[in-house]
Amino acid sequence: MKRKAINFEEKLAQFNDLWSPKIIAQMNDYHFKLAKIKGEFIWHSHPETDEAFIVLQGSLTIHLRDYEVVLQTGEMFVVPRGVEHRPVAEQECQILLVEPEGTVNTGDAVGELTDQGADWL
Amino acid sequence: MKRKAINFEEKLAQFNDLWSPKIIAQMNDYHFKLAKIKGEFIWHSHPETDEAFIVLQGSLTIHLRDYEVVLQTGEMFVVPRGVEHRPVAEQECQILLVEPEGTVNTGDAVGELTDQGADWL
Repeated sequence: MKRKAINFEEKLAQFNDLWSPKIIAQMNDYHFKLAKIKGEFIWHSHPETDEAFIVLQGSLTIHLRDYEVVLQTGEMFVVPRGVEHRPVAEQECQILLVEPEGTVNTGDAVGELTDQGADWL
Repeated sequence: MKRKAINFEEKLAQFNDLWSPKIIAQMNDYHFKLAKIKGEFIWHSHPETDEAFIVLQGSLTIHLRDYEVVLQTGEMFVVPRGVEHRPVAEQECQILLVEPEGTVNTGDAVGELTDQGADWL
């Protein structure tokens, strides 16, 4: 099978739903996921894993309990496992997530925003 | 400890050596590494792991034995474990690698280009 390069813009053009990461690549048992986010997500943590955020376009603030981290385009941040966080974006922001396959978007805070099992784009 | 966002441009400005990935972040037992590349690397494979390439700036061609994959800025590719590959960049290209900690740049083809143990930036 001839695999092709994965183009972030092309993939991002294929969906518009917010806070719903789409899988675009797999590396070992990890997934690369694209997401569009806007507004405030819920507080949650991932007890089993770190979670990497890369901002492709826009501005993302990751609230932690003691402080907050602002990420602009071309910046990344790794939320350590078990650390409560809440992503917030005033304007629509496009991000790339890297995390183990099966990682649920709301972590330990299952509710209406929970997206059980992200889809492949 | 208050962690900060990691800015790719700021980190890239801190080194100029080619084909020598620098670690900028850790997620579980994986490393995110920045590298500047230009010219032709050697054929090699990583028998133990997939390897993710993300092009931040420039153009990278990954030669595989049967075909080649061209990546432009904003594109990524995952070389499957055990697959021989040779990265080539005509002009200087800036990339982000994601791979397990301890992954050696030349994989199974140890030689003068081998960088045992990437350094943290």
